[in-house]
Amino acid sequence: MNHIVDAQKLRKPIPAELLSALRELVGERLSTTQAMREHHGRDESSYDPMLPDAVVFAHSTEEVAAIVKLCVAHRVPLIPYGTGTSLEGHVLALQGGITVDLSQMSKVLAVNPEDLTATVQAGVTRKQLNQEIKDTGLFFPIDPGADASIGGMASTRASGTNAVRYGTMRENTLALTVVTAEGRIIKTGTRAKKSSAGYDLTRVYVGSEGTLGVVTEVTVRIYPQPEAISAAVCSFPSVGDAVTTVIQAIQVGVPLARVEFLDANGVKAINAHDKLNLPEKPLLLFEFHGSENGVKEQAELVQELANDNNALGFEWATKPEERSRLWAARHNAYFALLQLRPGSRAIATDCCVPISRLAECILDTKADCEANNIIYSIIGHVGDGNFHVQMMIDPNDPADIARAEGVNERMVTRAIAMDGTCTGEHGVGLHKMDFLIQEHGDGAIDVMRAIKHALDPNNIMNPGKVVRW
Amino acid sequence: MNHIVDAQKLRKPIPAELLSALRELVGERLSTTQAMREHHGRDESSYDPMLPDAVVFAHSTEEVAAIVKLCVAHRVPLIPYGTGTSLEGHVLALQGGITVDLSQMSKVLAVNPEDLTATVQAGVTRKQLNQEIKDTGLFFPIDPGADASIGGMASTRASGTNAVRYGTMRENTLALTVVTAEGRIIKTGTRAKKSSAGYDLTRVYVGSEGTLGVVTEVTVRIYPQPEAISAAVCSFPSVGDAVTTVIQAIQVGVPLARVEFLDANGVKAINAHDKLNLPEKPLLLFEFHGSENGVKEQAELVQELANDNNALGFEWATKPEERSRLWAARHNAYFALLQLRPGSRAIATDCCVPISRLAECILDTKADCEANNIIYSIIGHVGDGNFHVQMMIDPNDPADIARAEGVNERMVTRAIAMDGTCTGEHGVGLHKMDFLIQEHGDGAIDVMRAIKHALDPNNIMNPGKVVRW
Repeated sequence: MNHIVDAQKLRKPIPAELLSALRELVGERLSTTQAMREHHGRDESSYDPMLPDAVVFAHSTEEVAAIVKLCVAHRVPLIPYGTGTSLEGHVLALQGGITVDLSQMSKVLAVNPEDLTATVQAGVTRKQLNQEIKDTGLFFPIDPGADASIGGMASTRASGTNAVRYGTMRENTLALTVVTAEGRIIKTGTRAKKSSAGYDLTRVYVGSEGTLGVVTEVTVRIYPQPEAISAAVCSFPSVGDAVTTVIQAIQVGVPLARVEFLDANGVKAINAHDKLNLPEKPLLLFEFHGSENGVKEQAELVQELANDNNALGFEWATKPEERSRLWAARHNAYFALLQLRPGSRAIATDCCVPISRLAECILDTKADCEANNIIYSIIGHVGDGNFHVQMMIDPNDPADIARAEGVNERMVTRAIAMDGTCTGEHGVGLHKMDFLIQEHGDGAIDVMRAIKHALDPNNIMNPGKVVRW
Repeated sequence: MNHIVDAQKLRKPIPAELLSALRELVGERLSTTQAMREHHGRDESSYDPMLPDAVVFAHSTEEVAAIVKLCVAHRVPLIPYGTGTSLEGHVLALQGGITVDLSQMSKVLAVNPEDLTATVQAGVTRKQLNQEIKDTGLFFPIDPGADASIGGMASTRASGTNAVRYGTMRENTLALTVVTAEGRIIKTGTRAKKSSAGYDLTRVYVGSEGTLGVVTEVTVRIYPQPEAISAAVCSFPSVGDAVTTVIQAIQVGVPLARVEFLDANGVKAINAHDKLNLPEKPLLLFEFHGSENGVKEQAELVQELANDNNALGFEWATKPEERSRLWAARHNAYFALLQLRPGSRAIATDCCVPISRLAECILDTKADCEANNIIYSIIGHVGDGNFHVQMMIDPNDPADIARAEGVNERMVTRAIAMDGTCTGEHGVGLHKMDFLIQEHGDGAIDVMRAIKHALDPNNIMNPGKVVRW
């Protein structure tokens, strides 16, 4: 992690004139207290906090533009901040500077039910949006583990359990309002569902992790709530049997809405945490969306495929309360797993491979965890070939951390060798910068760097993340 | 069109050393004959041809890289060319230079049925790919009117009739091999279905129309052939009734595979051309994909909605030969329409708006065509809010052309005012550069220009298209 130490050396004292200009602009919404800086200098990664010099709570796109202009004038780093739930060090103030907290930009600006679009300020969270559009019969499907802000989700190209059916933030972001690194306000797209009009600026900023500009508004696609939903759980004797079932279901065209894999450790943890009695074997948790007949047909077909692959029973969960209980357990897995090792902290990593290589990638990673005596679980959005390894480590034991980092590094190397990616949905942040190079090669990284240099010529936007200057 | 005249003034004589170096590299596959240059200096737009100085038929990515390096060394423009079926002047050699024809790079490199991916050389056409994967039970859904090359389709962010269900090239391109404007070979992604690994280089190049690099290989998503397909046609007394039916079908979650709108003129043309007897009224042509029961259920639901919206009969076409006949008629519409005015040429334009504004946008455009005495038809991928206006003009009558351009300009202005886009699937090319500015505003155009400058610092990649230097 030498690059982190080197980057931190670039930290400079914050100019007093900048702080007073910001104070003039936002008044009480500028804070330099230690508590506020500490709160904004960490995320859910295992990094030690790196504190910004000050935190500003922005209330409008125009205000963000004014803040960016001040930071440019003083060549001071600026870090956009949503809910602080990123996992790879995205929001840490590596070189100090100003953290712009967008959580108070939390208005749903427009809902267009006929067009299946909604436009929100960046600080609106996914649950808030779903709450506000509930009465329209529509929903927003993207669900990373945390109740993240939609601006943050766009910035990390987030996804979650519904991505196998509905796509990720890449597919579901129609347009952004962005404050560029020069402090100009641009719109990257329109509410048209498709467009061939010039360079795809929306997708230049989606996934750019605040390193090219600040996302202040997001127009997303929303979907009709399905007429019927059913869920099912099914245990398998082996990871291979579970994954083969998923591959076959996708190949015959079953429009799976969700298909989550939990390994035996994951099942054990949620059994204990949520008082369930699931067999402690590799498990698939399915959800089907469609018409009444459609979901029945889908589930029956999947059941047949599961049986052909040695399924140990296939249990239906058609009642909403049963379904909710199962999905709540799945969503609680992160915390349930921490309880497998009291006092531990989690290193949570992810990768994504072509699904034909998924079983092999999971099995090799599992073997690696076990060979290294790590308390771990593998849980995945297997319909996409995406899985997570959560390793419970003792934050005070460097050897323990090193073992987990070794597993992570070998998992990423394995995924890349299988024509996969070093991160399916968590992003690069600080932690995966070297893996990004390994995945893309110098030529493609040079193109990314050229884009960074072109769009942020003063290197003030979340500097030291994604690609090195 | 002053910008075209100005750009053409930048044309310089081609250096003899470049031609001899290219000759050494590719031998007989370099051509400077008038016939070959004329063939490559035009597309399906209404522009007069603009001839390159030479045409090279490339056989490999490495060869393309070598050609780019030679063009860079001599600061000579390079234009990638697939099938020459673009509609807005994309491949015209505005400033001369070398056209690199990729049509002989026509190998399907890999098909991965389990992963639902295929990797092809840029010159493979959509029909060729479908032919080659037919036996796997999979298909590639993107179908612009022409049998375009997949490299060209990626470069213009093409779509077609299936986009409402399967998305466009934006959603269906997983990775590209690109030769950068420096002649480096990069891969923009992997075969993983999703990724949060750094800037989205795939989508930087998708839709960039050869102005940032040359696409030489494309990895696309492919899909299981549906178990059952059914089609239906339905006429309506008004455009509004037809569009309302589509909006309602989408809103209740019917997974329409295709839904095409033809106006009365379009129906009249295909009736004559394909010996059909469809009522000469606004028409919707539906296709449903799913299980046997699923498609039945979908079609019944749509029929009910159509009836609520004053449908003039709803005819099923369940037999493959009936379906093929209807879809062939739809695909022949371009030629059928030309016969409405013998000796004419078509100006074909497109735009895309939020679907709630679609009926209004179509009706206003229709009124404008009629007020200007234009022989026209409006045909659209209405599920996406995307429609085409095809105007049959006398290519030798400047007043006729000017009237059509006026309709086009007002249509685009209307679409942009409705929060839509100046082109849904045709691209910008030469023709829509000013509309691109109108749509995006100076700030966003400056970001596009910064990307162009960063990735093509010598302005040799298809110069003078998309954004001005």
